[in-house]
Amino acid sequence: MPSRSPDDDPRLGDVSEGTVLRAILARTAPASHTILGPGDDAAVLAAPSGSVVATTDTLVHGPDFRLAWSSGYDLGWKSAAVNLSDIAAMGARPTGLLVALAVPRDMRLSFVEQLADGFRAACEALAPGCSVVGGDLTVSDVLTIAVTALGDLEGRRAVTRSGARPGDAVAIAGELGLAAHGLAVLFGRFRDGETPTPVDAARLAEGEASAVAAQLRPAPPIGLGPVAALAGATAMMDVSDGLALDAGRMAAASGVTIDLARSALGAEPERALAGGEDHALLATFPPDVLPPGFRIVGTVRRAGQTGVLCDGEPVDVAGWDPYRDWDAATG
Amino acid sequence: MPSRSPDDDPRLGDVSEGTVLRAILARTAPASHTILGPGDDAAVLAAPSGSVVATTDTLVHGPDFRLAWSSGYDLGWKSAAVNLSDIAAMGARPTGLLVALAVPRDMRLSFVEQLADGFRAACEALAPGCSVVGGDLTVSDVLTIAVTALGDLEGRRAVTRSGARPGDAVAIAGELGLAAHGLAVLFGRFRDGETPTPVDAARLAEGEASAVAAQLRPAPPIGLGPVAALAGATAMMDVSDGLALDAGRMAAASGVTIDLARSALGAEPERALAGGEDHALLATFPPDVLPPGFRIVGTVRRAGQTGVLCDGEPVDVAGWDPYRDWDAATG
Repeated sequence: MPSRSPDDDPRLGDVSEGTVLRAILARTAPASHTILGPGDDAAVLAAPSGSVVATTDTLVHGPDFRLAWSSGYDLGWKSAAVNLSDIAAMGARPTGLLVALAVPRDMRLSFVEQLADGFRAACEALAPGCSVVGGDLTVSDVLTIAVTALGDLEGRRAVTRSGARPGDAVAIAGELGLAAHGLAVLFGRFRDGETPTPVDAARLAEGEASAVAAQLRPAPPIGLGPVAALAGATAMMDVSDGLALDAGRMAAASGVTIDLARSALGAEPERALAGGEDHALLATFPPDVLPPGFRIVGTVRRAGQTGVLCDGEPVDVAGWDPYRDWDAATG
Repeated sequence: MPSRSPDDDPRLGDVSEGTVLRAILARTAPASHTILGPGDDAAVLAAPSGSVVATTDTLVHGPDFRLAWSSGYDLGWKSAAVNLSDIAAMGARPTGLLVALAVPRDMRLSFVEQLADGFRAACEALAPGCSVVGGDLTVSDVLTIAVTALGDLEGRRAVTRSGARPGDAVAIAGELGLAAHGLAVLFGRFRDGETPTPVDAARLAEGEASAVAAQLRPAPPIGLGPVAALAGATAMMDVSDGLALDAGRMAAASGVTIDLARSALGAEPERALAGGEDHALLATFPPDVLPPGFRIVGTVRRAGQTGVLCDGEPVDVAGWDPYRDWDAATG
């Protein structure tokens, strides 16, 4: 949709809630699973399997994003993508999103419109058939985007974290460490207030641009979640906090040890092990199965003293913990 | 569950995310619709009708509540209740909640535990069969509770706002104006910092206590949503922003005028018309139908110049609009 001119871009505090909601709704489009879209007390979505898969994840300004780096479009896209990924990780297909926005009232209406455009574009690109079906708008001093994603299992059983068995292959679909590389570029070169929004691609070296894009607008392999489930994945999860930490969670839930192969982790194995926010799919498969889009990165072993090994040795890297790693004062 | 001693009540910033999540999960209990509860990438809930009703609503410290007035238990209860009410307003039965918490890291672990207790108690009291099935925890300077509620239509059609027809009776289940009375008591007598939390009931007159309770721990008639749908309600919605404003929304959606009877609005009709946050159910029924729990408050007429009348005269009251009515500086 056309962008808003500076002369016609009021602050949210100067317009009614209804005006903001109408601006958002004009930019959403119902998709195939929507039975009743936004505008009533609640939405109604198809759940053909007789069950619904549901997850929620929040992005908060500060710990989760910086307005100096991310446009409204970027934030809408990323907020959608990280939630769609959790649906895919159960082997389900996303059917709808609900978006709860808490927005400072000095922000511009155009920002919220760009956010809506980002949500729509991410759904269309990553999860056709899924759309924003409902939401909520309130005012807060801290920009907060809480998203709930819903999905359908299409008759399959949910693929949990707890089904990995000794002898299974450990496989990945999607990037490992690329989003963390992008974050390092942003922290190293573009501190808050030093750069125009969106990030000026001309100031990025080759390789840096794709890493920054992976951080700001991740494109996790949503469609491969159902593919993995159909192929017989024994366990699956979304890698949001780094492969080492998340593989450890899968190992604990399954009562096994996961032994990763450093040679399969790309040019920067440490970043692949520690870097969060890629939203790759980590799955385990019986030894003779590997669906398209997945690559083997290790083997499931019987539970040992350590949940995660790399080439048989314990891995000592930590993932992202907002309560430990974020300080509002120092950034 | 037993309350936490001051010696064993760390600030959230001093413990890991896992510790906080375990403390919360110890206080949730799966209910009958839960197929897969918290702990994986997503939850799985029964959707026996082949569709799912979904809504989201956020409570932000400041516009929506004050920690000086509300305990963690109150906030959990209210956050659940206001979302359950939106499910009931579609004629559906709530099946599950997802809770996205953004919490300042100087808050105590016991606060989050009380919040979980409040969610559980509200579900058990207002919507048996519904429970918290998933959530998200992040850090923010502003305490923010974003809840998504899911529900099942049990084979019925959703009751929207748009089905009211001339000649229908207009009916209410639940309180009108009581929560607004409670808010007035709190604003008039208990400004931030002047009162212990929770509000000291001994300082409240008779009548004030029930009003404050309706504001802090509302008990909307969730079970009457499906009752109204079964009885043939032609339109229904949750009264969250005041009867006049919300009846106007229903009138606009249905293309009718709603004529309210002042004599049916209780001892304080102005407060009933303007006061928000009661989460009563507003429904319209064919003239010969009135299910138990509902009382008639007006009549649906053909669309006139004004959407809402009271005894045939236009109503001029405004409901609650957070972008207009909340100022972080002045409260």
